[in-house]
Amino acid sequence: LAQHFNCIHMLGNQVCAPVELPANSRHLDTYFTNLTLTDKSFHVSAIGRGRALDGIEMMAISRGLTLDQMRDDPGITTIISVNSPRRFDEMMAEGLMTMAEFGQSVAVTPFTLMGAMSPVTLAGALAQQNAEALFGVVLTQLVRPGAPVMYGAFTSNVDMKSGAPAFGTPENTKANIASGQLARRYGLPYRTTPGSASNAADAQGAYETLMALWGAVLGHGNLVYHAAGWQEGGLTASFEKLIIDVEMIQHMMEFLRPIEVNEAELAVEALGAVPTGGHFFGEPHTLERYATAFYQPMLSNWQNYEAWQEAGGLDATARATRLWKKALEDYVEPVMDIAVREALEAYMARRKEAIGQGEP
Amino acid sequence: LAQHFNCIHMLGNQVCAPVELPANSRHLDTYFTNLTLTDKSFHVSAIGRGRALDGIEMMAISRGLTLDQMRDDPGITTIISVNSPRRFDEMMAEGLMTMAEFGQSVAVTPFTLMGAMSPVTLAGALAQQNAEALFGVVLTQLVRPGAPVMYGAFTSNVDMKSGAPAFGTPENTKANIASGQLARRYGLPYRTTPGSASNAADAQGAYETLMALWGAVLGHGNLVYHAAGWQEGGLTASFEKLIIDVEMIQHMMEFLRPIEVNEAELAVEALGAVPTGGHFFGEPHTLERYATAFYQPMLSNWQNYEAWQEAGGLDATARATRLWKKALEDYVEPVMDIAVREALEAYMARRKEAIGQGEP
Repeated sequence: LAQHFNCIHMLGNQVCAPVELPANSRHLDTYFTNLTLTDKSFHVSAIGRGRALDGIEMMAISRGLTLDQMRDDPGITTIISVNSPRRFDEMMAEGLMTMAEFGQSVAVTPFTLMGAMSPVTLAGALAQQNAEALFGVVLTQLVRPGAPVMYGAFTSNVDMKSGAPAFGTPENTKANIASGQLARRYGLPYRTTPGSASNAADAQGAYETLMALWGAVLGHGNLVYHAAGWQEGGLTASFEKLIIDVEMIQHMMEFLRPIEVNEAELAVEALGAVPTGGHFFGEPHTLERYATAFYQPMLSNWQNYEAWQEAGGLDATARATRLWKKALEDYVEPVMDIAVREALEAYMARRKEAIGQGEP
Repeated sequence: LAQHFNCIHMLGNQVCAPVELPANSRHLDTYFTNLTLTDKSFHVSAIGRGRALDGIEMMAISRGLTLDQMRDDPGITTIISVNSPRRFDEMMAEGLMTMAEFGQSVAVTPFTLMGAMSPVTLAGALAQQNAEALFGVVLTQLVRPGAPVMYGAFTSNVDMKSGAPAFGTPENTKANIASGQLARRYGLPYRTTPGSASNAADAQGAYETLMALWGAVLGHGNLVYHAAGWQEGGLTASFEKLIIDVEMIQHMMEFLRPIEVNEAELAVEALGAVPTGGHFFGEPHTLERYATAFYQPMLSNWQNYEAWQEAGGLDATARATRLWKKALEDYVEPVMDIAVREALEAYMARRKEAIGQGEP
């Protein structure tokens, strides 16, 4: 599905962890899947040096590059989560250092849920996030000056009754904007996140995600992560939610196209030609442009009530089911050179044998 | 319901037109209902001088003011719609002039749906809207210099396949922001509108309304009209949608509260006290604030999936039904002096007799 929609530029690697595969080597299977089923970039798991290096090696094979060439032409990204407050665990630190060593992109993202892993106040949480993120940023530059690194933010609040994380809240939206200001202060690209704690692909899922997405956009996010399909605070991946999220992202992309102002766009001639109380449907100015003038949503239904009822009266969630099924039907596997595919398979087999029962 | 929720400051008069009442006098019944069932301001119908004057008179009675006193202390608002392109019909013009004469607030709002009543291009539609709105603004000032007037905007696009109006589109969102810039250019308060064309109180209803609401807020809207319960482009009023919209407005109000930055909010002491990898739940800094630290949504559900399922697995729309029923149960009619109520009833009776079968 991610391959199908142009607004998705990068995949999250394990949308759902394939728990039926061994934990010590499943990263190889998911990298292989990312490389063969899509032609987009993806997130590598940098839990320790081995997993990071496997991602770098496999991306290098698929692009026909040496590891040295990859250093100057990065192809993958990882998220390094800080175990807030202030714990940068060993596996994450190793992963970060490996990625930096090979010049691959790292987003350092403190996990600062207000009231739980950070102070209950926004200023305090942002101060902590900033210190933790900069620590990781500095670490990448110590390993390899100039290594690509992003300022990551994930500050939101928890439900103080239950401790459950919440997303798309007013606090989360403000944090997404303020974090972008902090990232720009340091001249760093900014990784941000929309999200929702809703259990259903419903109105709550839409308004929470869109609140946080506006925060991400107003914060000038460079990488908007967990952008599509995220539900229940990331514990569930939903096909319907993915469609709703893609629709909201497409709305936002179209919104960000500047308003053109010139003589043709001002339509002076058409404004003069249409009589008072008339309409513009038949104007040449309209007819020349009507097919592409407006963004055409894939999910929104603009029928009147009667026509909508006759067509089945499906709400947006039900229509989303049809859309993702159609997208999967239309899916075409990208072409990959058979030699590259075989090289990837050989690499996987070799590594699985080497890993055995141990750690990667 | 509008009386129940604090984020609603003004009522739209006829949420649904009471078609069972005679068209020439139903404005009296709806004014009476607005005045007795709520203590909030409301929109008067300014279709002609009679309806506007009735609204002004009845508001004056309920506030114990003379018409002269009302001139310097306005209590009602009307929306004057321009029958775009460029037609300011007689009834609307009379209504506008009556409102201005008595110093009541007027929002002049061109009905500029791109591709239908205005050019298909945003620059052209905004140019037309601007000219039409300023025409009405000037008319109020000719009648009575200093009369309160707002710059109104309602620019959106239509579905070019069917001609049906759409709301909450990227184009509508941009128009809401740009219109605010135009209003500020003239130093005028700004009336703007969120909306949705969805037939259901679903995810589409939420994302369309929230897109346009962000446009309204980023456009610095002073009056956000049609803000709650609007569905099917205004052809349907939905109780569930009202709850969802109120929730989104409350999110926005909380979002607009600035981030406080001071020593207490920075939580320096708590940041020092919590050990690496620990948590902030038990910190005095948290305990002092946790009850009110975050916005508490009324509609959002933050339970985990299992708990949510056990509680019935209701989506946001189903939960909204419970909330509006509860709000109606909790409703208390505001107290009104019996003499004022009788004076309003007497005014209504007198006017209904005077109107008879004619026009108000």
